[in-house]
Amino acid sequence: MIKLHHLNKSRSKRIIWLLEELGVDYELVAYQRDATTFLAPESLKAVHPLGKSPVLEASGYTIAESGAITEYLIQTYGADKLMPAPDTADYIDYLQWMHFAESSAALPLLLKIFVKMDGAETRFIGGYADAETAKVISYVNDRLEGKSYLVGNSLSGADIMMSFIAELVGQNGEFDKYPNIAKYYQQLMSHASFKKSMQIEAEHDR
Amino acid sequence: MIKLHHLNKSRSKRIIWLLEELGVDYELVAYQRDATTFLAPESLKAVHPLGKSPVLEASGYTIAESGAITEYLIQTYGADKLMPAPDTADYIDYLQWMHFAESSAALPLLLKIFVKMDGAETRFIGGYADAETAKVISYVNDRLEGKSYLVGNSLSGADIMMSFIAELVGQNGEFDKYPNIAKYYQQLMSHASFKKSMQIEAEHDR
Repeated sequence: MIKLHHLNKSRSKRIIWLLEELGVDYELVAYQRDATTFLAPESLKAVHPLGKSPVLEASGYTIAESGAITEYLIQTYGADKLMPAPDTADYIDYLQWMHFAESSAALPLLLKIFVKMDGAETRFIGGYADAETAKVISYVNDRLEGKSYLVGNSLSGADIMMSFIAELVGQNGEFDKYPNIAKYYQQLMSHASFKKSMQIEAEHDR
Repeated sequence: MIKLHHLNKSRSKRIIWLLEELGVDYELVAYQRDATTFLAPESLKAVHPLGKSPVLEASGYTIAESGAITEYLIQTYGADKLMPAPDTADYIDYLQWMHFAESSAALPLLLKIFVKMDGAETRFIGGYADAETAKVISYVNDRLEGKSYLVGNSLSGADIMMSFIAELVGQNGEFDKYPNIAKYYQQLMSHASFKKSMQIEAEHDR
């Protein structure tokens, strides 16, 4: 049985969505952030030394990176779903978004959140984070012009990885500024598996 | 012909190494950082809207994420080299390191560099970056105990992706603190293809 170690208000809700979309049986082990520090609990360190979530246990493997978990689950249980055929241009795009979500996109967005949480005056980090975030989000918005999904015409692992970024845009109140991302997020939310994952996440978020 | 858009002093030197190790013909298009701001030149934006490097052009595709480029090149030209067989535990580890290098590892390390460059007093970012970096680097050091390579007993794409992190540990003068990473970096440097990539990078770094 697959086991997903899930932390509330974290990127692991993407993996709930993926498991629901794949229709794979799994057990969810829920963890709660500290109400004051917002940090993950120490108990997650017993699961993986980095003490983060998502962590997936499957077939004797422990996997602790969202991108690796997504690639693994789709390759293992996808059966041509959620992933374009290799040797196609779409597959290249799929790989790019798979990595983009947690590298080029996540870095400036998280930097911006850190600077805001810190509250101290910065010489350039604050401005850099704002400029890079705008650049990255504009790029995503441009790429979504006239499209319902990032890759091809159907839901793929790329959308599941990037849903976190689209959600952050909404949380920052910037859907008006990036209308293609707003429409895209509505499209993602129309999936029954996504609605179910939001419900499961809410149930485990005290 | 494969074209690699290469920026000096950047993560794209990993892709030079990979291309040299795979023995694939390629054309290197060199770009230089601004001597004062250390920023990439505007000309890179004509290659890809994010204006970063590496960018790979191959078979009509433009690929702009190190992890995606590495996965693509190895899947296309690797012929069972540099990547474990799927459905093995090693393959799972391979995928994890492939994503880890640019997400869990890069974020705190780059945050630390940004805080240092900024120079302003922070309330918590500075301490957070230090603590997270130590955690992540200790984890890598622990995982390398008694091993020459990250995955199995031979060089793989995981090592090529993670070489950048090992290099940063050295640049921070912390090889003494993380002896397994120091030994590992020596091991990586022993590859002729790595030596050649360093030489090519140096030739294009004015």
